[in-house]
Amino acid sequence: MGKEGFKEEYRLRVELFQKRLKEKELEGALIFQPADLFYLAGTSPEGHLFVPPEGEPRLLVYGEVERAQEEAVWNPVVPISSFKEIPLSLADWGFKGLKRLGTEMDIISLKLFSRYQALFPDCQWEDISPDLRTLRMVKSASELEAIRYSASQHAKVFQYIREHIRPGMTELEIAVEVETYARRLGHQGRVRFRGQEQGLPIGVVAAGPNGACGIGVPWTIGGRGLSGLYPMGASTRRWETGEPLLVDYAGVYGDYLVDQTRVYFAGQVDRILERAQAVAYEIACSLAEAARPGTTAGELYALAVKQARQAGLADYFMGWDRKAGFVGHGVGLELNEWPVLAPGQETVLEPGMVLAIEPKFVFPGQGAVGVEDTYLVTQEGAKPLTQG
Amino acid sequence: MGKEGFKEEYRLRVELFQKRLKEKELEGALIFQPADLFYLAGTSPEGHLFVPPEGEPRLLVYGEVERAQEEAVWNPVVPISSFKEIPLSLADWGFKGLKRLGTEMDIISLKLFSRYQALFPDCQWEDISPDLRTLRMVKSASELEAIRYSASQHAKVFQYIREHIRPGMTELEIAVEVETYARRLGHQGRVRFRGQEQGLPIGVVAAGPNGACGIGVPWTIGGRGLSGLYPMGASTRRWETGEPLLVDYAGVYGDYLVDQTRVYFAGQVDRILERAQAVAYEIACSLAEAARPGTTAGELYALAVKQARQAGLADYFMGWDRKAGFVGHGVGLELNEWPVLAPGQETVLEPGMVLAIEPKFVFPGQGAVGVEDTYLVTQEGAKPLTQG
Repeated sequence: MGKEGFKEEYRLRVELFQKRLKEKELEGALIFQPADLFYLAGTSPEGHLFVPPEGEPRLLVYGEVERAQEEAVWNPVVPISSFKEIPLSLADWGFKGLKRLGTEMDIISLKLFSRYQALFPDCQWEDISPDLRTLRMVKSASELEAIRYSASQHAKVFQYIREHIRPGMTELEIAVEVETYARRLGHQGRVRFRGQEQGLPIGVVAAGPNGACGIGVPWTIGGRGLSGLYPMGASTRRWETGEPLLVDYAGVYGDYLVDQTRVYFAGQVDRILERAQAVAYEIACSLAEAARPGTTAGELYALAVKQARQAGLADYFMGWDRKAGFVGHGVGLELNEWPVLAPGQETVLEPGMVLAIEPKFVFPGQGAVGVEDTYLVTQEGAKPLTQG
Repeated sequence: MGKEGFKEEYRLRVELFQKRLKEKELEGALIFQPADLFYLAGTSPEGHLFVPPEGEPRLLVYGEVERAQEEAVWNPVVPISSFKEIPLSLADWGFKGLKRLGTEMDIISLKLFSRYQALFPDCQWEDISPDLRTLRMVKSASELEAIRYSASQHAKVFQYIREHIRPGMTELEIAVEVETYARRLGHQGRVRFRGQEQGLPIGVVAAGPNGACGIGVPWTIGGRGLSGLYPMGASTRRWETGEPLLVDYAGVYGDYLVDQTRVYFAGQVDRILERAQAVAYEIACSLAEAARPGTTAGELYALAVKQARQAGLADYFMGWDRKAGFVGHGVGLELNEWPVLAPGQETVLEPGMVLAIEPKFVFPGQGAVGVEDTYLVTQEGAKPLTQG
């Protein structure tokens, strides 16, 4: 894509967002979150993007603007040195006495919001995150190209895993092998997640019972981690014969990511694990087949639960005591994008959505099994992007 | 330390915190942040710790409690399934009609705070983060033991770096070498940072001009990173002869961390860089010597600036256009602990504080030089914990 095509894509994104601003009768939006900034402006500096209901957005950046200027779609980038300059800059552009603004209310800190309120004392604030997250669900051709690249790099990692793991290795030894190989392929070594979680590992390696141990956040499988303040990810436990090994990694090569999980058995594992693993694959196939335009996210979840129940495994589906409450999620710039494949979710699938579908079963004392791939929604169902 | 000593230490932490709650006439505090939870309860699940002004704290955890129960100092841990159960549980313990509560207002999200307000409609909220951060500044014997362990592991990493880097390698190749070796030694592969930053790498490798490129957060040196949404850390740029290479890594082996930076020269670098590097070491020595009980954090910063000015290098000290605004910071469970060695900071140093002191100079177009070590404040000044 040439420079003009690049700008055209961002112009379209902004116009679709502006349509929502107008419907909500907002006088503009102040965007601060890195992934949202990147989506609307092509760069993610510490700063604020003001999106008026019409016309080009303006990017305010703290201090040095050189880097942001280089990357940003909307120029010139305006340097500011403190919060107080935000309303002054907006006034310079003709935006004065603002009464209705939007921002990312789902993730804004109380501190930043209080500052916004003090800066715009007469302003009423609306949450524009649902609008942005909805826009971001459907990926463009260039976004899909980036996601396909991450998928192809991540496929090499999972091939490497298959060839290099063996029972007797510790989870940490396996994690180091995986992460080193992935980093050599350009993996960022971290992953963007919407919200306050900072303790997030880029992946989980969970051997045997560690696939079922309690975790710090409400996901199916978080692993045991190395210590109390880092209670997720690999531990120093060995993968023993007779145990499943769950390997779940986000693949972040560039700005876009994929999510993938594979489970490996060391020798003969308990029959129920083997059966659950087969059922997980069946559920994944059914969901991919059913994930057509017009289907809702909630219907996919219901279908997964129905199959788990028919297999007599509903109690173990997506966790045992505390269940994850979803069987998949959108991915793109962040790991937890929309839609969420969860009970009652009415989001209707559209071509171009990218979904991680991850049916898993958790057996207390024994471990976790299942599978996760990242798929592209098409007219003919969801097509897997991840492999290996 | 035996189990009783362990509990005794936590009891002391809680009692000191409770003293502050009583001074502020609070009826209790609701703690949610992982590092604060870990500091006061020994575990960091998704949940809330209620600390009354007197008596034992109570830990409320979402869903599975097994893991939290195992780690927590305060038992029994109470399982909850939603926010709404918080006031009910507190009422069960006799805490009803609460009018004045504390929480971590520096970092709480608007969303969580709004939920708290809805749950306790008659309650006035106070920020207790300054109290907790102040308490956490002075480390106990067991905390120092953990920090010394991280320092000794990190020393091995920096020895490895010295032996394995050479001009011509890319920043990413160097980062992979460093991170792989560190992970093999038990490095968590991530670092706890107070606040909303999730794009944080565990370290920066910056060759030549990349030491001076713009970054996403207001630190001295962030590196260029691999792409727009991950604008910090190593890039694919090669370290060329005649250039400085800055390597700055947090060392997180267990729950406690150290922070360390070294700069390496490939052959002969520009005179001014060489001189600035020598001045940085002189400043570090002076600050360590001056960091005695009774000195303030602001005085240390002023001393550093004075020496930079005397050397004629003030313009480049701690950044060039946008300066970091500090020359050091506390470390412990998080990378950005108190005190901050910044202008006017009145925090008085005490024995047992652990400080990263990091005088650095940034030359646009040329790169960054400097040094960083983690020190323990003693009666005889600050003693380095990191080495190599």
